[in-house]
Amino acid sequence: MSHIPKTIERVIEEFSKLPGIGPKSAERLTFYLLRKTDDDIRKFGETISKLKEGIKYCEVCKNLTTEAKCSICEDLGRDKSTICIVEDVLDLIALEKANEFKGVYHVLHGLISPVEGIGPDELTITDLIDRVKNNDIKEIIIGLNPSMEGEATAAYITRFIKPFDVRITRIARGIPVGGDLEYADSQTLKRALEGRSEY
Amino acid sequence: MSHIPKTIERVIEEFSKLPGIGPKSAERLTFYLLRKTDDDIRKFGETISKLKEGIKYCEVCKNLTTEAKCSICEDLGRDKSTICIVEDVLDLIALEKANEFKGVYHVLHGLISPVEGIGPDELTITDLIDRVKNNDIKEIIIGLNPSMEGEATAAYITRFIKPFDVRITRIARGIPVGGDLEYADSQTLKRALEGRSEY
Repeated sequence: MSHIPKTIERVIEEFSKLPGIGPKSAERLTFYLLRKTDDDIRKFGETISKLKEGIKYCEVCKNLTTEAKCSICEDLGRDKSTICIVEDVLDLIALEKANEFKGVYHVLHGLISPVEGIGPDELTITDLIDRVKNNDIKEIIIGLNPSMEGEATAAYITRFIKPFDVRITRIARGIPVGGDLEYADSQTLKRALEGRSEY
Repeated sequence: MSHIPKTIERVIEEFSKLPGIGPKSAERLTFYLLRKTDDDIRKFGETISKLKEGIKYCEVCKNLTTEAKCSICEDLGRDKSTICIVEDVLDLIALEKANEFKGVYHVLHGLISPVEGIGPDELTITDLIDRVKNNDIKEIIIGLNPSMEGEATAAYITRFIKPFDVRITRIARGIPVGGDLEYADSQTLKRALEGRSEY
């Protein structure tokens, strides 16, 4: 790639570093941008530069926000006594899009993973326990992925929350809507049968 | 997505505009960046902002360059009497990676496409004809995609070049019809160059 200007090569390089973007896609994205106006390109660059500007963790739920509390925790219409525990903000966004949950969240910013050297102290579990201790919480919904790390993290958290008078639930495991039973793995089918409901 | 800070939302929006990046991927990319240091993010943004800085067309072949002539046209080791015509710089990069071609290029920056309203005047065809007229060119290799637009552009160019004493060839159809030259692997491109035939 020595036959193209350095400034272009650098953008291809930066794009290649992003997850799921190979060298060919990085080239395509870069040359797509090259066809944009100077203004559009500058605007794109500046938007990225400002990504983290003023961003901090919500002091209650650890969601990302520019204020002391995030918009969900500030929302008077949300039920503060029901907390859904999620791994990261992407999961929170996904749940919000479903437009079903009217409680609040607690974002762990990861899962316990001995393999990756992530212990409970790297996460926001202590904040969660304090939150349960100091507030009138009625239900904790565990909204973690059904992976090994998700299960381990759920077990760890449950142990600390059990002593309080709190209902602990977890989101249902089963066949995704629109998914095909035939292609579901045995573990999913097992969970789907266990969690069956009245027709 | 009203529950996340505006600066983050804007980056997701910008990523979504890129070709091949859907809303979910845009979210993933953005949150991947969020885990980077402030410095890394700023560097990424600045690199993009500078993408077009000092970039112009090579006065000979219309490749992108920061100098009057691109590094290929400046290279004394390249055969200036053999010109390979390509649609865009991505195709030039792909051919260079095959490391087979020792001539020079002519970048059209598009193909004739009545559907998209692109006529010969939108491309660098006049420059190409001048180049053939005023230099001792021995061979023109047509390195365009075997699409309808590629064929039409090849036919148009050939009509103007035929009167000159120039051998006109095209890269072999080792590239599947309907496929994209840019995505061909180096070996296929090498074969395609070796097996070029008289136009």
